[in-house]
Amino acid sequence: MADAPPISFARGAPSLDIVDVDGLKAAAARAFENDPGGVTGYGTSVGYVPLREWIAAKHGVEPAQVLVTNGSMQADAFLFETLVAAGEDVVVEKPTYDRTLLNLRSLGAVVHPVSLQSDGIDVDELAGLLAEGVRPRLAHVIPNFQNPAGYTLSLDKRRRLLDLAREAEFVLFEDDPYVDIRFSGEPLPTMLSLDDAGSVVYASSFSKTVCPGIRVGYLVGPKALVGQIQKLATNTYISPNMVAQAIVHEFCVSGALERSIATVKAALAERVRLLTEALARELPEARYQAPEGGYFMWVELPEEIDVDRVSEEAQNKGVLFVKGTDFLLEGGRNTLRLAYSGVTADQIDEGVRRLAGAIRAVEATAAA
Amino acid sequence: MADAPPISFARGAPSLDIVDVDGLKAAAARAFENDPGGVTGYGTSVGYVPLREWIAAKHGVEPAQVLVTNGSMQADAFLFETLVAAGEDVVVEKPTYDRTLLNLRSLGAVVHPVSLQSDGIDVDELAGLLAEGVRPRLAHVIPNFQNPAGYTLSLDKRRRLLDLAREAEFVLFEDDPYVDIRFSGEPLPTMLSLDDAGSVVYASSFSKTVCPGIRVGYLVGPKALVGQIQKLATNTYISPNMVAQAIVHEFCVSGALERSIATVKAALAERVRLLTEALARELPEARYQAPEGGYFMWVELPEEIDVDRVSEEAQNKGVLFVKGTDFLLEGGRNTLRLAYSGVTADQIDEGVRRLAGAIRAVEATAAA
Repeated sequence: MADAPPISFARGAPSLDIVDVDGLKAAAARAFENDPGGVTGYGTSVGYVPLREWIAAKHGVEPAQVLVTNGSMQADAFLFETLVAAGEDVVVEKPTYDRTLLNLRSLGAVVHPVSLQSDGIDVDELAGLLAEGVRPRLAHVIPNFQNPAGYTLSLDKRRRLLDLAREAEFVLFEDDPYVDIRFSGEPLPTMLSLDDAGSVVYASSFSKTVCPGIRVGYLVGPKALVGQIQKLATNTYISPNMVAQAIVHEFCVSGALERSIATVKAALAERVRLLTEALARELPEARYQAPEGGYFMWVELPEEIDVDRVSEEAQNKGVLFVKGTDFLLEGGRNTLRLAYSGVTADQIDEGVRRLAGAIRAVEATAAA
Repeated sequence: MADAPPISFARGAPSLDIVDVDGLKAAAARAFENDPGGVTGYGTSVGYVPLREWIAAKHGVEPAQVLVTNGSMQADAFLFETLVAAGEDVVVEKPTYDRTLLNLRSLGAVVHPVSLQSDGIDVDELAGLLAEGVRPRLAHVIPNFQNPAGYTLSLDKRRRLLDLAREAEFVLFEDDPYVDIRFSGEPLPTMLSLDDAGSVVYASSFSKTVCPGIRVGYLVGPKALVGQIQKLATNTYISPNMVAQAIVHEFCVSGALERSIATVKAALAERVRLLTEALARELPEARYQAPEGGYFMWVELPEEIDVDRVSEEAQNKGVLFVKGTDFLLEGGRNTLRLAYSGVTADQIDEGVRRLAGAIRAVEATAAA
């Protein structure tokens, strides 16, 4: 088994079969043909202007509220560098994306993790923190198909978060890279679109709808803040990648984006169906909620199972995942994240069989 | 005259006629065809692996010494963030690239500008600083066709700088984006290639040989330092632009790069010839040294001419340049930088006529 090629539920990246490589190639050709000067020149730190306008129209905001960046992680880094000083309070979801945690901590922020429920961040717990006198500079929330949990923030909680942000004057950072790949249930409005107090800074990306290697993400926020971040961007890299952003623009306006999103959704819906069927068969004791979109599913094992040991056994058996502890400052020793974005449908049964085998092996040693 | 389209000697960017747009389009098609997985996937923060290997071979170093970034400004920013803490001494050339000055100052570094001579930084002045007890963390040097001066560091001074760096244990940051566009004189070895003490960190870019909008630059340095910067890069943006770097790689290996460099060199050599002829005719009092490569020429006007006023008059007359004062912490009020990279040959005579007109107008008011 150890010699079989490993099956990876670890990385939040699409398998190549759901990336429209031909569409990208055609978009690149059109970009160089249609706007050679704009594509090859420096441009400015706001990003490729036609793409910036396309994004502004998509979100119903002014172009001056949009900054297009080299991936949305870079957008996060600019935002954090601009807003968060050492010693300041910030709120994150518990669990949350490991890189966000790392970056906030390395800035010296005081991180307050607030429990995540299956309908999103525990707003009462957050309200309690505020009542105790915590004054966060920002709260980081991944509203749709959260990474790592796969959960989605309910409409009611979106409204309550906006109220809290307005009252306690913190920035509500809506980190929303998965929004367009909902494959079941009804779409919910973004907090950006519900915000009438200028509380929200919104980030998204084309990594999940075009491809990750194109590294195009963006921020939407109040004009003054976006202008401030724009200066930081100029001093960091003059301008982001014009070639990549022009390719994305051509991909969007040609209709390739919509076709790509349909392909991704259909594939991911099938993978979630196969994954939950396999888990029900092989690991009936595992607890999870089937996601309505996105890349990830959070799995809780019985409390006595140590995910460190499962991870070791799983590597021996040729299956990879990320331990839940990587997304938490403490706890979660019986949890793991399964990414179904990078496995093809025919790998899922075998992957779950290997995972179940690893868990059975850990149980056997514990019982011995 | 004010209604004529402005002629810009201001921006260090190539005119579109010397960018191989068709070659880029063909390179993009090959990139998507030859390596769809590598091009569309996240990759890692070291950059697109085949391009990293190509760069390592070009410089005769190991791939582990190379980090490919989103433009070389981003490489500079990573290096400065890694090495330079607030209150530390750094050495720069006087004059130097305005963004470098800005970034070092915003990190809180104590900037020591050392005079630039027509054969490069004044090494005696630097030795004097060191003798006084200044212990710089790094010295930033643009050895070839310096921005803004166009001057080139002599071989003798390259060796002396390496000696000083080894003795005083500072990082010699060789910032070399223009090296490949030498159009006259003999190429000199990089300090990187002469270094046997691990003193040099080297940066370059494809902005001047492929195009700026592709935003691909790189760092070469000691493995341990590159590894440290690589972690910072991962936390900042996961990975740089794989699509853009794969396009550059295809452009390089296909021979398009060499053809592009030949085109750029021929055009820039002609522009320098036309520029110096026009200056000799229209502004015989101006002092300058014709560059052997690169994008820029530094011009000194008679001491009594105030470049602020010339700049205002020039804008009225439809010609743009950057004031020398932008590249200095103090002084240089009678100097300016002329970039000949972005003007086509047929604009140069008219541009210099307008510039001379602006200077004559300032002289007339001063005399009145």
